[in-house]
Amino acid sequence: MNVVSRLQGADVLRADQFDRGGLDLILDKARGFARSLERGERLDTMGGQILATLFFEPSTRTRLSFEAAMLRLGGQVVSVADPKSSSAVKGETLPDTIRTVDGYADVIVLRHPLVGSAEEAAQATDKPVINAGDGAGQHPTQALLDLYTILQERGEVDGLTVALAGDLKHGRTVHSLAQVLSRYGVKLLLAAPDALRMPPDIANDLRAAGVSLEETENLQEALSSCDVLYMTRVQRERFADPAEYEQLKGAFVLTREMVEGAGREVTVMHPLPRVDEISPEVDALPGAAYFRQAANGVPVRMALLTLITG
Amino acid sequence: MNVVSRLQGADVLRADQFDRGGLDLILDKARGFARSLERGERLDTMGGQILATLFFEPSTRTRLSFEAAMLRLGGQVVSVADPKSSSAVKGETLPDTIRTVDGYADVIVLRHPLVGSAEEAAQATDKPVINAGDGAGQHPTQALLDLYTILQERGEVDGLTVALAGDLKHGRTVHSLAQVLSRYGVKLLLAAPDALRMPPDIANDLRAAGVSLEETENLQEALSSCDVLYMTRVQRERFADPAEYEQLKGAFVLTREMVEGAGREVTVMHPLPRVDEISPEVDALPGAAYFRQAANGVPVRMALLTLITG
Amino acid sequence: MNVVSRLQGADVLRADQFDRGGLDLILDKARGFARSLERGERLDTMGGQILATLFFEPSTRTRLSFEAAMLRLGGQVVSVADPKSSSAVKGETLPDTIRTVDGYADVIVLRHPLVGSAEEAAQATDKPVINAGDGAGQHPTQALLDLYTILQERGEVDGLTVALAGDLKHGRTVHSLAQVLSRYGVKLLLAAPDALRMPPDIANDLRAAGVSLEETENLQEALSSCDVLYMTRVQRERFADPAEYEQLKGAFVLTREMVEGAGREVTVMHPLPRVDEISPEVDALPGAAYFRQAANGVPVRMALLTLITG
Repeated sequence: MNVVSRLQGADVLRADQFDRGGLDLILDKARGFARSLERGERLDTMGGQILATLFFEPSTRTRLSFEAAMLRLGGQVVSVADPKSSSAVKGETLPDTIRTVDGYADVIVLRHPLVGSAEEAAQATDKPVINAGDGAGQHPTQALLDLYTILQERGEVDGLTVALAGDLKHGRTVHSLAQVLSRYGVKLLLAAPDALRMPPDIANDLRAAGVSLEETENLQEALSSCDVLYMTRVQRERFADPAEYEQLKGAFVLTREMVEGAGREVTVMHPLPRVDEISPEVDALPGAAYFRQAANGVPVRMALLTLITG
Repeated sequence: MNVVSRLQGADVLRADQFDRGGLDLILDKARGFARSLERGERLDTMGGQILATLFFEPSTRTRLSFEAAMLRLGGQVVSVADPKSSSAVKGETLPDTIRTVDGYADVIVLRHPLVGSAEEAAQATDKPVINAGDGAGQHPTQALLDLYTILQERGEVDGLTVALAGDLKHGRTVHSLAQVLSRYGVKLLLAAPDALRMPPDIANDLRAAGVSLEETENLQEALSSCDVLYMTRVQRERFADPAEYEQLKGAFVLTREMVEGAGREVTVMHPLPRVDEISPEVDALPGAAYFRQAANGVPVRMALLTLITG
Repeated sequence: MNVVSRLQGADVLRADQFDRGGLDLILDKARGFARSLERGERLDTMGGQILATLFFEPSTRTRLSFEAAMLRLGGQVVSVADPKSSSAVKGETLPDTIRTVDGYADVIVLRHPLVGSAEEAAQATDKPVINAGDGAGQHPTQALLDLYTILQERGEVDGLTVALAGDLKHGRTVHSLAQVLSRYGVKLLLAAPDALRMPPDIANDLRAAGVSLEETENLQEALSSCDVLYMTRVQRERFADPAEYEQLKGAFVLTREMVEGAGREVTVMHPLPRVDEISPEVDALPGAAYFRQAANGVPVRMALLTLITG
């Protein structure tokens, strides 16, 4: 079965479900849609179809960008934006909810606080299910738009050095992105406080997939040898010892001086929302790509929606 | 005035407002839309029109299926899915809210916790108002999709034996369905614990309408002589004496053994959401129609929307 | 630069940003859209474009009428109707939220509890931002639909006597309307309890703009010499001394007798929602314009949306 037909009707549940061929196809499609958005072209690719966005956890970014993607494709949307306005409050199980929504929509996007919920949802319906984040689990479309952003910002992915920084222990975003990047010839720099290092099993999987890995606890050091810096937040509540947090905080806050002191042109990314881990004065630097990254969610999700609905 | 023109511009407030001719017309229209959905036809019947869904109580199923129905017809939707995001929190009366929404939409769907609220809303506007549940009152479109499901699953309605089971005292769904079924030559089996029997006035009305009624407290007995079993939930909080509930619970939980022990092909229906009153292993049986029933909400609501907007 | 091109790409932040030429253009456009709505014409003026409605405070009226306006123009909508379902709960700043939504939509409508938030939002994006109410600040599109309503109800604006009544101290609605009316040759009657008089700086600005101002504490007196009565609510919590409120309340509640005792045909307006400051029996009088006023929100917002997106 070729790459295109493998994606038809597929669920999008995990970042590691895509091989290089699948990823390249999605990137290529996304670039096509980005061009058509720029030209203000009006599409009808998904005309007559309905996307259901079921968000059992708050999200502006992911929900709105999926909805914008569907509307830009000429499709329509029904939405549960607030778990309290859904039948889940009446004690309905997730599979029952999904089996019901199956009758109303052609594609289902699900965000849910429980790990594995997207997989459970996918088993309940023949319609394609897209995982928009299942707790500490996966967030595959974020990894795809991150990959697409690296490509757009740097012109290529192979051969780059990408630094993942901040909380590499709990961040589903960096885990998913690392899996996706392992399909390309990249070098990964893992910059994290000792308490928040990438879990050994994930690091081992990446090494087994041929990724060159280096670890550091020093953000500035990572900056001075990477092409792309992917920041995530170090949260106070992750530390058993508050004193440890107090000592660290600041070391993983990116400032303009740090970026300018890198001595090279670094692309700065962040899954957003940020709180204070990137100073606002970084925003004006040419390498600050995080808002372009957010906007890339639309063409990437347009690509996915069209590929899986065939 | 003929059947078609009586529906034009009409409000849909109560299940008993429809005579046999009106019901047959809706069923027929719904079947037509179901076929066009199956064929993936793209409709523009409600193109340029706006449906407002005002939900002052949570509901995934009813709201999303009305919205999907409108979108499948080429129309558009504005929605208040959460009472806390509406002006009702500022003390506005329901008629004032409706008179305002009258200026934004061509049809209004209302779910509201108070009995009679849909009627009050309908008096405040010339636009058609559809009651999507008014507390313990009516939920007429549920009754219509239930009727449509019986027709689809059994090929005809006249001559069937339909068992209504569970809480027949409080369930607006079974009251509305019984009213609709009274337009057809059906026999009703009422299977309920003594404390939750169908209220005498409703039972008397049904008898006066020529319905043959039989009552039992035994779910298995009902199963062994019906064509359709319509399950509803027996809620603990309905019993003054918890011991009485403990004794009963289980007797009104449908299991696979019970269905297979019926000795006949029974269609199992449920308005959903279910909690535990139908065991999940029933889902795989050919007669388990409840998810098809939920999906039938779309063509039935498409039929209603087009008929009342003329 | 001419009037039309000044509006292209503009943000709509304050009522006083519009000069007479801009206001007349908006009124004229709105009248055209009202006619096309009446004729049931189907428009595609904003086809392929997306409006984002971001409501960080509850509102049925403003949100739904913006969404209806966009949909009537053939455009589409993405929406955050409930602040709790947005990323703001994760500590994201408003400019970051706006920079993100910038990637999903062509126009942004914002309601936010903080004064100045719309201006802050407008600085974060090149896309047009429309202020749909920023706390005690501005609500310019309300002022525009109020102005349009006066024109529709009275045939002209110049030369009218408009009474603003109720809480003239805190009401952003009456402040914005007074600014807009100052572009026309109107006389303003300010009818308010002494504690809730129009702030002196606003009154002085109006006089400086050539508006003839008169003040009274007597609603009936205002009624007997105005063409238009614009009611707002006097809220108990605005009074330091509850006894003062008790004495006043009733004096600023409009009854049918008061309107009929005016001895002239008065147009009664209200921004809605009302609580009890206009008795329901006023609704049936020909001059009761407040629900028509609410409905006027659609053509006026259609006019604005098309003018600022060019």
